[in-house]
Amino acid sequence: MRRNSRDAELRERARLVIPGGMYGHESAALLPDTFPQYFARADGAYLWDCDGNRYVDYMCAFGPNLLGYRHPAVEAAAAAQAAEGDTMTGPSEAMVVLAEDFVSMISHADWAIFCKNGSDATSMAMVTARAYRDRKKILVARSTYHGASPWNTPSLKGIVPEDRAHIITFDYNDLDSAKAAFRSAEGDVAGVFATPFRHEVFADQFLPSAEYATGLRRLCDEADALLIIDEVRTGFRLSRDCSWAVHGVAPDLSAWGKVLGNGHPISALLGSDKARQAASSIYVTGSFWFSAVPMAAAIATLNAIRSTDYLERIVAVADRLRDGIDEQARRHGIPVRQTGPAQMPLILFDDDPDMRKGSFWTGTAARLGVYMHPYHNMFCCAAMTPADVDDTLEITDRAFAELKNALPSLPAQPNERLLQRLAQRR
Amino acid sequence: MRRNSRDAELRERARLVIPGGMYGHESAALLPDTFPQYFARADGAYLWDCDGNRYVDYMCAFGPNLLGYRHPAVEAAAAAQAAEGDTMTGPSEAMVVLAEDFVSMISHADWAIFCKNGSDATSMAMVTARAYRDRKKILVARSTYHGASPWNTPSLKGIVPEDRAHIITFDYNDLDSAKAAFRSAEGDVAGVFATPFRHEVFADQFLPSAEYATGLRRLCDEADALLIIDEVRTGFRLSRDCSWAVHGVAPDLSAWGKVLGNGHPISALLGSDKARQAASSIYVTGSFWFSAVPMAAAIATLNAIRSTDYLERIVAVADRLRDGIDEQARRHGIPVRQTGPAQMPLILFDDDPDMRKGSFWTGTAARLGVYMHPYHNMFCCAAMTPADVDDTLEITDRAFAELKNALPSLPAQPNERLLQRLAQRR
Repeated sequence: MRRNSRDAELRERARLVIPGGMYGHESAALLPDTFPQYFARADGAYLWDCDGNRYVDYMCAFGPNLLGYRHPAVEAAAAAQAAEGDTMTGPSEAMVVLAEDFVSMISHADWAIFCKNGSDATSMAMVTARAYRDRKKILVARSTYHGASPWNTPSLKGIVPEDRAHIITFDYNDLDSAKAAFRSAEGDVAGVFATPFRHEVFADQFLPSAEYATGLRRLCDEADALLIIDEVRTGFRLSRDCSWAVHGVAPDLSAWGKVLGNGHPISALLGSDKARQAASSIYVTGSFWFSAVPMAAAIATLNAIRSTDYLERIVAVADRLRDGIDEQARRHGIPVRQTGPAQMPLILFDDDPDMRKGSFWTGTAARLGVYMHPYHNMFCCAAMTPADVDDTLEITDRAFAELKNALPSLPAQPNERLLQRLAQRR
Repeated sequence: MRRNSRDAELRERARLVIPGGMYGHESAALLPDTFPQYFARADGAYLWDCDGNRYVDYMCAFGPNLLGYRHPAVEAAAAAQAAEGDTMTGPSEAMVVLAEDFVSMISHADWAIFCKNGSDATSMAMVTARAYRDRKKILVARSTYHGASPWNTPSLKGIVPEDRAHIITFDYNDLDSAKAAFRSAEGDVAGVFATPFRHEVFADQFLPSAEYATGLRRLCDEADALLIIDEVRTGFRLSRDCSWAVHGVAPDLSAWGKVLGNGHPISALLGSDKARQAASSIYVTGSFWFSAVPMAAAIATLNAIRSTDYLERIVAVADRLRDGIDEQARRHGIPVRQTGPAQMPLILFDDDPDMRKGSFWTGTAARLGVYMHPYHNMFCCAAMTPADVDDTLEITDRAFAELKNALPSLPAQPNERLLQRLAQRR
C-alpha cells in the first residue's frame, strides 16, 4: 500500500517556513497529488520518496543526473577531494585540470570559467558579449529559457523594464526573424543566444534546421557579434561536444551546468580565443566558485563521458522507451506526441488543453512507481537499463488502460495553479 | 626551504585555459608573489599550498570557514546525506528542517529561501522588494559590496547603464544622505540595502551608529519600503542573530551565505511575514538550490552555532591577535590601523599610498606561514587557538622587523595590476 503521510507532513511544515510552500522548478505544486515533493534517497536510476515509495526517475534532478545517482567513480573522486579540502582561500589543482580537460573536449573552447548556477554561466555570457565590442543588444529567441535572473526569468513580478532594455527577441528557427532583429539593433548587437533545440514547457519540442544554425553563425560573423550556445539543459545528453557541432557550427561562448559534476554544484562558461580578452575584462565571482569537490566530481564525470559508452546507452534506453510508449498509445487509441531528442523526452496528449489527460496518466504512473513529468521535458540517464524501461512500460501500459477507462468521464483539470499557468500562456 | 614550483607550474598552465589566469576574488594576481594561488589541503585553521607549505589562514576561504576547515560534525552530516542523495528531482527533508532551524534562530525571520551564491540572495532580495509594492527604486550605500551580478558588480565592463537604472546611492552612516535618496525616489522606494558595517577594500572599516541603523528602519517604515540587511560576509561572525539586532533593528529581509554550510555551497534569503507574499510571487530557482548535502551541512553548522561557544572563542583569538599586532606595531614604531570588528580584521599601514608596506609585511608573513590579506578584510574562525595566534605573532613580529630594516630603501609597489586598482580608486 502506497503511503504519503510523511510527504504530507513535510509539506505542511514547509508552508510555514518557505514562501508558498516551495519555490522554483522543483515545486510539485502544479503536479498531480500522487507526486511526492520530498525525496529521501537516490541511487542509479531510482528515487525513493520520504514515505519509502520507489520511482524510476525520468527527471534526473531536472538534468544533473547523467551517469546515475551516486555514481561510484564520481562519488569516490568527490569524497577523496573532500578529505583534503573543498572551499578554501584559493582554488585547488583540480580547477586547472578540469579547465584543461573540459576545453580539450569541446571543439570551440579555448578557456573556461567555473561558477555555480546555470544562470551564472548565461549571465556571464551576456556580460562577456557586451564587453567584447562594448555593445549592448542581446538577441534571444522567444520562449527559450536561459535562467532565472532578472534579465531572463520567465515571470515579470519584481522585474523592471530596464532589466530587459537591450534584449531583442526573435522567433526560434526563423532566420528572417533573426535578421530583422539584427537590423533593429543597428550595429549594436553584442551577442545572440542560441538554444540547441526548442524545449519550452507545455509545448512540443523541436529541433532547429541546419540552415538556421549556420545562418545564426553567419549573421554573428557579419556583425562581429558573439554566438552563445546555451548547453545548460542539453549538455552531454545530445553529444560529447557542443550540440551544434553536427551542423558544423562553433559558437564563441557556450554555457554549461547541470550534468557537469553529475549532481555536484558546478556550471561553466566556455569560450574561444576570440572572446578571451572580453572574458578577462569583466568582474564575476562567487563564494563557492573555486570549491574543489565539485571540480573533482566534474573531472570524474568528464572522464566517464570521454571513456565510456554512456551516451549510446542513454540513447538506446530512450529509444526503447519512446518506441514502447508509441506502441501503447496506438494500441490504446490515445494519441500522444513524443517530441525532441528521445533522451530528453516530452510526452503530450492530443486534445488536452487543460492537461487532464497528461495529469491523469503521469499521476497514475507516479502512483505506480514511475516519475514522468506531464509538461516539462524529461531526462534519461546512463544508469537506466533496458529492464528499467520494460518495467516502466508495464506501468505506463496500466496508466494508459486506466486513462482509457476514465476518459469518458475524466474530470476537468483539478489543479487550480496549473490552470492559471495554462491560462497565462494563452 | 620554501618551494613554489608546483604553484608556478599551475599558474602557467592556467594562463592557457582560464581568462587572465584566474578571475574573481580568489585571484592572487594583486598579491605579493610569496602568496600561493592554489591550495592542496585544509584542516581546522590551516591551509597547505600545492608545494606543501603550511599557513595559518586568516582568510577562511573569504569567510565560509567559520568553525574550522573540515569540521568533523559538519563533514559527518554531509557525508551521511551524500550516502543517501544530494541533487535529486526534489528537495529532501533537510530543506524543511534547515528552514525551521534557521528561522528559529534569526529573530526577524519567518521564512527562508535557499540558493547558492551570496549574489543569488541579494538579487532575490532586490526582486522581492520590488514585488512587495510594485516599486522600482533600490537604495544602496556607496562603496558597499552586495555581489557580482550586473546590478551590483564593482566593475562596469560589460554592464549597461540600465542594469543600475533604479539603484540610488547614498553615503554609509549618513542619515541625511539616506533621507535625500528617499526624497529623490519620490515614493518609489522598494527597498534599502543595509550593510552591517562598512568593509570596503583598501579602506578602513567602520561600524554604523545606532542612530543610523534605527534611522534607516524608520525611513523604510515611513515609506513602506523593505529594509534588507546583507549578512553574506558578516553572518554569524558578529552575532548569532542579524547583526543590527544589537541596535534593536529588525530588517524585513536578510541575505546570508558563505558560512551557512561552513564551506558547503549554500546561501539564503530570510524574510519576515510582511515580505512573505512578495517572496511567493517571484520566480527564482537554480539547478542545485534544492540539493540535500549542503543543507545537511548547514543544519550541522547552525547546531554548532546554537550549542557551542564558537563565537566567544573567535572573538577571544581575534582580540588576542589585534592586541598583539598593536603592541608589535608600537614597539617597532610602524603605525598600523586595525579597523572593524576584531573577528573580521583589516590591517592597513599609515603613509602607505601604494601599499608597499602592507605588501611587504603580508608578503613576508606569507613566506613564513601566515596568510594575511594586505587590503581585504580577513576572517577569524573557531578552530584558531591562542597558540595559533601566538605562533602568528611570532611571525608577524619577524615581518615587522624585516619591514623596519627594509623601510629606508623599500622599493615602490612592484605589482602593476595593484597599482592600476589603486589608481582607479582616486
